[in-house]
Amino acid sequence: MNSNLENLWEEARELSFGTTPQIERLHTPPTPLQYLRHYLSQNKPFILSASVATTLQWPATTLWTSTSYLRRTLSSSTVSLHLTPTGHADSLTPHPSNPNSLCFASAHIRRTSFSDAIDAINASHNTDLNKGFVAYAQQQNDCFREEYGALAGDCDSHVSWATEAIGSSPEAVNLWIGNELSETSFHKDHYENLYAVVTGEKHFVLLPPTDVHRMYIREYPAAQYNYSEETGEFKLELENPPRYVPWCSVNPYPLLQNKEKEMSEFPLYHNGPKPFEVTVKAGEILYLPSMWFHHVRQTPDNRGLTIAVNYWYDMQFDIKYAYFNFLQSLPAPNEPTSHTHSTNKNVSDGDEKHSEESTF
Amino acid sequence: MNSNLENLWEEARELSFGTTPQIERLHTPPTPLQYLRHYLSQNKPFILSASVATTLQWPATTLWTSTSYLRRTLSSSTVSLHLTPTGHADSLTPHPSNPNSLCFASAHIRRTSFSDAIDAINASHNTDLNKGFVAYAQQQNDCFREEYGALAGDCDSHVSWATEAIGSSPEAVNLWIGNELSETSFHKDHYENLYAVVTGEKHFVLLPPTDVHRMYIREYPAAQYNYSEETGEFKLELENPPRYVPWCSVNPYPLLQNKEKEMSEFPLYHNGPKPFEVTVKAGEILYLPSMWFHHVRQTPDNRGLTIAVNYWYDMQFDIKYAYFNFLQSLPAPNEPTSHTHSTNKNVSDGDEKHSEESTF
Repeated sequence: MNSNLENLWEEARELSFGTTPQIERLHTPPTPLQYLRHYLSQNKPFILSASVATTLQWPATTLWTSTSYLRRTLSSSTVSLHLTPTGHADSLTPHPSNPNSLCFASAHIRRTSFSDAIDAINASHNTDLNKGFVAYAQQQNDCFREEYGALAGDCDSHVSWATEAIGSSPEAVNLWIGNELSETSFHKDHYENLYAVVTGEKHFVLLPPTDVHRMYIREYPAAQYNYSEETGEFKLELENPPRYVPWCSVNPYPLLQNKEKEMSEFPLYHNGPKPFEVTVKAGEILYLPSMWFHHVRQTPDNRGLTIAVNYWYDMQFDIKYAYFNFLQSLPAPNEPTSHTHSTNKNVSDGDEKHSEESTF
Repeated sequence: MNSNLENLWEEARELSFGTTPQIERLHTPPTPLQYLRHYLSQNKPFILSASVATTLQWPATTLWTSTSYLRRTLSSSTVSLHLTPTGHADSLTPHPSNPNSLCFASAHIRRTSFSDAIDAINASHNTDLNKGFVAYAQQQNDCFREEYGALAGDCDSHVSWATEAIGSSPEAVNLWIGNELSETSFHKDHYENLYAVVTGEKHFVLLPPTDVHRMYIREYPAAQYNYSEETGEFKLELENPPRYVPWCSVNPYPLLQNKEKEMSEFPLYHNGPKPFEVTVKAGEILYLPSMWFHHVRQTPDNRGLTIAVNYWYDMQFDIKYAYFNFLQSLPAPNEPTSHTHSTNKNVSDGDEKHSEESTF
């Protein structure tokens, strides 16, 4: 079984990327037919480079470099700001009552004016102003159209070649404003994702869905950060009644002191084929195919901000999805076959399909 | 593993076809985008119905109902005629020196004038004229363009929406002229196949690639029929040096006296989900996706002939193919894990990829 899986990991790479696996870079947008034929149908990512001809032809790429423009335009907007102690939202963190195990922690969400949000993001990477939290303006529920309507005219409401290929408009369009401290842990989405960076850079680590056993997806108890303005401290509380979230256990960038432990705990990840690492720069678009595992970090622009817009299109649940579920249903090599919730058991995709936590 | 596989078989059906699995029927041709989005990308078959608006707009549909037209037009053509004792070419038959095992028998190929070919096909289902063989005019090496060039003006040289979607012309176009005795055993092709029936009817039994374990693909020694004009008899000879062909062991229509044996030998086929059975009539086109297993029988028109043209387009070897190879590499439930050639061992797809025998 182990060698069968290893062959699968290698073959998925060779078939899609040839012998020197790297993400393809296009210099002109694909036609809808090309996008369907070469990328979506094949579940294969690419980056659309920025160039005079192909860069996002949006006012946003210049307008949004001015924070005062953003403050002015969004002066009457209320936005969702995610607060966490270290910038790791929707990620695994020590269990509040049992530090030897992990829980899945969601950010404290503060509904606030855009101006306050920007101040908080700026404060969170400035040691002098730091209030003990990292702020990230984001919300996956179509927040660009819901909360940032005043910016709608600054960029395309959809990616035209993707909309024509897929045959429908985006299911959600999300805006992300953060700094270098915000990081998104490994997960996958049940959407076709067009990810456009407007200012700064995003750094993705990508693995194809065929690598599912390498991610050590297990169920973790859900917990919630609550931030107190008074004390300036976070309290992490388990949900009650308990709820379990399937999540990837691996971290592509473990702290030096944890590295050995992580390598012995997650050998399929650390000893298997190298993940794809790609940087998406301002003006570029990444096509991140449905079901691909991704981890995201960011580098800010000279103001200290990274701003991105992503378009989620409905994926087709077709034979690829059936194959994926079958693959995931097989036990990993050298893994015990059953766990209980309290020991973070391995899971199938069934529960995750409609879980909000499985999304970015 | 058994229940995992059963879930896969069911889920592949449910996702592609809903709860009452049957092949979709279109009444107008898809656009190239629709074909890519809903069918090719999803590896999902459909039938394009014949109607005033959508029927093959070919002179062939009327011209080819006249045998004298065909004889006249092809009067100087040499064609490939496949001769077998019973109409089963490229199929499993008792081993010539060990009747308890099977071999993979290829037809005797006679290069002959078209008029002789038609006489032979007519003779082979007419008891009075029967010479002890069944004749089938076919050749998978692009025979429509190679041998039947004189008919080129009678039908489209490609399927326009498929060509535009796939981005290239057909790799091969094949013509098939036979009668009710000719039958093609279960196999799969590494091509996207558009199968157009011109006269008579074709009856397909179809199973998705996820059903690979149900087909009991094993390696059989290759053998060749040789027909003697003098004796009017066939001699079946093993290839020397020996060559082994991976082929499906199951037969959807076993003889009554073999049925019980086949059901106990191939339980995953006979006890699993019902295969798709579809009839393609004159003027209709079947999209038979790459890697789908298919078995084909035919009903002739009132002259006693079935004529079809099929277009093979190159398939993409993408993540679906990697998943398929992984699936096939897993042992079937309740199967011994190793065999030798002489006992018709189970095989992986590797060898078959470029094997001519794996094609129609």
